[in-house]
Amino acid sequence: MGKKVDLNCDMGESFGAYSLGNDEALMGLVTSANIACGIHAGDPLVMDRTVRLAARHGVGIGAHPGFPDPVGFGRRAMQLTPEEIENDVLYQIGALAAFARSVGSELAHVKPHGALYNMAAKDVVVAQAIMRGVTRAGENLIVVGLAGSAMIEAARETGLCVAREGFADRAYEGDGSLRSRKLEGALLHDPQVAAERAVRIARDGVVVAYTGEEIPLQVDTLCVHGDTPGAVEIVKAIRQRLAQACVEVAPMGSFIE
Amino acid sequence: MGKKVDLNCDMGESFGAYSLGNDEALMGLVTSANIACGIHAGDPLVMDRTVRLAARHGVGIGAHPGFPDPVGFGRRAMQLTPEEIENDVLYQIGALAAFARSVGSELAHVKPHGALYNMAAKDVVVAQAIMRGVTRAGENLIVVGLAGSAMIEAARETGLCVAREGFADRAYEGDGSLRSRKLEGALLHDPQVAAERAVRIARDGVVVAYTGEEIPLQVDTLCVHGDTPGAVEIVKAIRQRLAQACVEVAPMGSFIE
Amino acid sequence: MGKKVDLNCDMGESFGAYSLGNDEALMGLVTSANIACGIHAGDPLVMDRTVRLAARHGVGIGAHPGFPDPVGFGRRAMQLTPEEIENDVLYQIGALAAFARSVGSELAHVKPHGALYNMAAKDVVVAQAIMRGVTRAGENLIVVGLAGSAMIEAARETGLCVAREGFADRAYEGDGSLRSRKLEGALLHDPQVAAERAVRIARDGVVVAYTGEEIPLQVDTLCVHGDTPGAVEIVKAIRQRLAQACVEVAPMGSFIE
Amino acid sequence: MGKKVDLNCDMGESFGAYSLGNDEALMGLVTSANIACGIHAGDPLVMDRTVRLAARHGVGIGAHPGFPDPVGFGRRAMQLTPEEIENDVLYQIGALAAFARSVGSELAHVKPHGALYNMAAKDVVVAQAIMRGVTRAGENLIVVGLAGSAMIEAARETGLCVAREGFADRAYEGDGSLRSRKLEGALLHDPQVAAERAVRIARDGVVVAYTGEEIPLQVDTLCVHGDTPGAVEIVKAIRQRLAQACVEVAPMGSFIE
Repeated sequence: MGKKVDLNCDMGESFGAYSLGNDEALMGLVTSANIACGIHAGDPLVMDRTVRLAARHGVGIGAHPGFPDPVGFGRRAMQLTPEEIENDVLYQIGALAAFARSVGSELAHVKPHGALYNMAAKDVVVAQAIMRGVTRAGENLIVVGLAGSAMIEAARETGLCVAREGFADRAYEGDGSLRSRKLEGALLHDPQVAAERAVRIARDGVVVAYTGEEIPLQVDTLCVHGDTPGAVEIVKAIRQRLAQACVEVAPMGSFIE
Repeated sequence: MGKKVDLNCDMGESFGAYSLGNDEALMGLVTSANIACGIHAGDPLVMDRTVRLAARHGVGIGAHPGFPDPVGFGRRAMQLTPEEIENDVLYQIGALAAFARSVGSELAHVKPHGALYNMAAKDVVVAQAIMRGVTRAGENLIVVGLAGSAMIEAARETGLCVAREGFADRAYEGDGSLRSRKLEGALLHDPQVAAERAVRIARDGVVVAYTGEEIPLQVDTLCVHGDTPGAVEIVKAIRQRLAQACVEVAPMGSFIE
Repeated sequence: MGKKVDLNCDMGESFGAYSLGNDEALMGLVTSANIACGIHAGDPLVMDRTVRLAARHGVGIGAHPGFPDPVGFGRRAMQLTPEEIENDVLYQIGALAAFARSVGSELAHVKPHGALYNMAAKDVVVAQAIMRGVTRAGENLIVVGLAGSAMIEAARETGLCVAREGFADRAYEGDGSLRSRKLEGALLHDPQVAAERAVRIARDGVVVAYTGEEIPLQVDTLCVHGDTPGAVEIVKAIRQRLAQACVEVAPMGSFIE
Repeated sequence: MGKKVDLNCDMGESFGAYSLGNDEALMGLVTSANIACGIHAGDPLVMDRTVRLAARHGVGIGAHPGFPDPVGFGRRAMQLTPEEIENDVLYQIGALAAFARSVGSELAHVKPHGALYNMAAKDVVVAQAIMRGVTRAGENLIVVGLAGSAMIEAARETGLCVAREGFADRAYEGDGSLRSRKLEGALLHDPQVAAERAVRIARDGVVVAYTGEEIPLQVDTLCVHGDTPGAVEIVKAIRQRLAQACVEVAPMGSFIE
């Protein structure tokens, strides 16, 4: 059987009068959409529009729960109790699931957003709280988390399906962690460089670290950033190179068990 | 078959550090709980706690969607578009439904809150927008609305089950509308007066208007206000008088078809 | 003495990760900036940045208070009590004034935003509540309101200085009111048409209504919309035509007494 | 000259329909009120009411800025940038100052709230960001911070007046830090015990730590918690014992230079 990989993108991050991202153009290019749930971003109208757009394109609909910090866009770490995290996640999944069901679809996955994602990658207590929320939502959701992180481990221990995530447009450190956005060289802007990286990750299971060495990296899904200027070009390049490399791009739900 | 009536109460209106109402005491006395959904009031922790409390008491769990106006507690009229109302309602039902399902229960009804309730009683466009949200939620919810109002009519036209609501502790005008809270005599504080009124409404289908005449009033559920000082005494008095009058107090879902 | 007119523009409407408008380009072209105060739009960082930008350009800094409805961007009518309006306005002026003072500047004017502006144009109770908030702020602010509206009258009765506002890129009805944005032809997109209109208003004190007749219109300031695609071109055209017509563009504070 | 001490209390923490604390009763017993600024708690109406109440009692009015986390009541640590903290503080001081000025009064002090207070006690970067916000507000405010903390040091280095704060109803560890609220014995509920402690701190400059030893503690103001059940009794006991011990209770502004 050939190699497969999912392409996921954060979507539905507009809010009221504010537009963000390029959902219309990107929805036709990815296989999974992480849709904001009205707490760190998004609102009911945006959720409705984005869920319909994803359904129309056959793109997997995922909940993208985040911290209750709209001005910080869910990107600022917050010290919530595990119980708060669990119930915040359940709330956001429930809200989005109603929109999915209302168009005859259902949620396929959940991917925590921003600071919640980053904290769950390292802090098992946070990761486990998220898993309790996901489990209680009872939607058989695939959990998307950073490959090799505490979130992946917590999801597996909970018995949830996982999608290990990699980044074609981010630099990796030698230990397999993502290079901090605050440091130089953290982001790759050249579509061809990102596409080549996507092939190495998806086909060969390796990535070249910032410090030069090859490190192993097994992923099920590659994240595409929708709010960067050249996002559409990067995704198109990635798809083209993956096709040339005989890696099939498919929704994570079609190959993750 | 004997007369039956449901007793409903707004619950789960606490928020973060703020406590409101007396849910613990009242949950054992009512048959339906209208639970705030985190938008005009409530938060995920409060929703979780309140849903569990209702489930433990066998009280019907209902969504209580309101306007996105926390400082106004959803009590201030807002001019939303029908599409905004529809999706706001769907969002809030979806969020609460996740909590109900997570404890092995499900939603029984939906009752719009505050200004949304009042607007829907008179404005058919608002009422129809709510019904679209309720229909899309697909939970076979009973819609609770002011007896004789546009909301009841819109729900019926949509094919939804309805519970016509009356108020034992509010004065009625001669035309069957509720006397404005801004006017003298709008609220009845004497538990025995409220209880007598509950009996007249539930058993006889009449209420004595503020202006003295008897007017017909068919209801399925009586609203009990949880945030008034003597709420517990009023509900106890109502239950006692209803029992004496051989009116059975039962969850609306048990007798509304 | 020659004719003078102010050009005002809403600014500082970005919020967290969300960008809105084109403040950098427009600040050099207008004479007064209405800066959002963190309630319907804006946040402390955006306020700081926008106040500094205005000060650098010698543009008059004005408070732009709106309804507490971020998802609706303050554009949805809300039924607040006069006391709520008064204190909401005072709050927002106070917050922005601190930023102005912190860069050695001060507030010059106040212009209510969106639905609050529209309600105050027609509802004297709302207008008077705003004036109480402005008066209590004690900053000797000029009140910007729709020419001929209840807000202008309420401001004058309160003893506040007023700037009567007109719109170069909006259609007027025969009675002098603005044509609703919901109706066809409400917005003028052609820079030259808007510029010609600006001259007629500022130099001649007349505007051609949607229905064809000339109506009198005395204004002190013309509103420029910053969030329309061709905003910069429209403002440039307006400035050019006003210069040719010998109408001086100057901050309202320099000629209103 | 005799010993003096200020008594401060958090006030104005109600929000919309939610009441918190016992401001009416406590305002007559303290000398400084830390008033929430509408971000973590409070709203414009509550701010107005609380500022008037403080002015009527001759109680020092202070800004009580907190994190933008209403559901967490500003008690959850958030990782803001220094620039965000600085501007959030400036915003909140500015908003409250407008209310103080509007009743002919002015702000006397600023005390960060909850998690912001706790972070500033230990993290000099946070403390310095607060000081920049306070300085920019330009109101000659006294900064209230935990005695011996990084906040006091940062305020002094900035050239601001400081009030070192102690707690009569909290346990201290041997190193002078406050015993965590998560640990047993963190709170003292007996009014006489708290009052005795207040005397030892204010008159003798010492406190008995949880572990039994006397440690030095120089304070200018004692914090009184308004949301604990016996708050009024505790404050009355403290005042009585301080009077017996010839320690004068006076607003911090009257003796801090």
